[in-house]
Amino acid sequence: MTLTVYGVPLSPFVRKVRLCLRQKGLEYQLETVMPFTPPQWYLAINPLGRIPALKDGDCTLADSSVICQYLEEAYPDTPALYAGNAQERGRVRWLEKYADYELAPLTTFTVFRNRILKPTAGQACNEEAVQAALKQKLPPHFDYLEQQLAQREFLVGNQLSMADIAVACQLINMAHGGEQLDAQRWPDLAAHHARMLALPSVAGILPDEQRMNAKLKEMGKAATA
Amino acid sequence: MTLTVYGVPLSPFVRKVRLCLRQKGLEYQLETVMPFTPPQWYLAINPLGRIPALKDGDCTLADSSVICQYLEEAYPDTPALYAGNAQERGRVRWLEKYADYELAPLTTFTVFRNRILKPTAGQACNEEAVQAALKQKLPPHFDYLEQQLAQREFLVGNQLSMADIAVACQLINMAHGGEQLDAQRWPDLAAHHARMLALPSVAGILPDEQRMNAKLKEMGKAATA
Repeated sequence: MTLTVYGVPLSPFVRKVRLCLRQKGLEYQLETVMPFTPPQWYLAINPLGRIPALKDGDCTLADSSVICQYLEEAYPDTPALYAGNAQERGRVRWLEKYADYELAPLTTFTVFRNRILKPTAGQACNEEAVQAALKQKLPPHFDYLEQQLAQREFLVGNQLSMADIAVACQLINMAHGGEQLDAQRWPDLAAHHARMLALPSVAGILPDEQRMNAKLKEMGKAATA
Repeated sequence: MTLTVYGVPLSPFVRKVRLCLRQKGLEYQLETVMPFTPPQWYLAINPLGRIPALKDGDCTLADSSVICQYLEEAYPDTPALYAGNAQERGRVRWLEKYADYELAPLTTFTVFRNRILKPTAGQACNEEAVQAALKQKLPPHFDYLEQQLAQREFLVGNQLSMADIAVACQLINMAHGGEQLDAQRWPDLAAHHARMLALPSVAGILPDEQRMNAKLKEMGKAATA
């Protein structure tokens, strides 16, 4: 039985689920569902219409964190991404949520959305909002994550977890929006991100994403020319 | 070793954690931390300054869902609140998140905040926003939850879960704000909520909350008179 992920590759939350599946060595197919105009049948899976959702036989679930924890529990023989004792697992969930709810509004819904998505719809990029995100709002979050890493390889414990993946997914959307982390200011976080990009799971999907992103950028240029 | 919960009783998220602890029969003390003006030391526990947080010996964690899942894993001999198979546990997490992120902005941050909190700070209640929440925005969510219950006793499976508790916590803040669920329109959800209010864990903390809420209401009247 093949697992089905609904969504589009440039969503950081779809990427989270795909990387979770890839790290666990689980086969899946990606079925395109556009985030802002989901088809009617999709609303039975997620009444909120957001992506991603997962179908696993009769089981359908929405929300990237709910899905990743489901995969952890439904496929216990695969590499754990919420590993460790209760406290460590709590920290993984905390940092995953931190990435999803504190970074995402800035990296994805401000930088990526303004630079890439809005122009494709013929809307102007709000560069002032992008600069406020980059210069004022994101730095305290990067400071916090730098502090959490404290020169270690992974955010929690001694192994890759959904915390690492969730943070990387946000920095990837920021990069799609044309912005890199300042490695002088946040050296540990930048080194962490470089290691994440080198993971086969990430390296295996990123080139396709970058091609799609470049295409959207061209479309945006044409639509706002 | 006593567990410490930081926050204030009228927060739906603090209530979620307290009810989780009470259902699990775990002793705890509540230490007051105000949500909008947390003391400096609290920021080391939660850099976002939000409540609740939990202290369990050397372990500190923030975010109500992270805390409740921690309690589930750290105290496995207590009654499970994320019970069942991977799919059922996924549905518990989905509905808990649905309450926390879809209901809360309306029940707590619109109805309760406008009717109770804002007047205490001398600010006018935005009754238009309250009515829009009650008449337009909340009904589709209540429809969805009514459908999920489908005349069963609990939202997921055959036992109480964090999904039931999270939804009840939001309806309690709506009630603190002076609004009850329409039992004619949503009979299963109203019956579910009545059963939740009758739980000893809920009944044991609600009278104190209601006294505090009445006091805030009086303060609000005085501050906006």
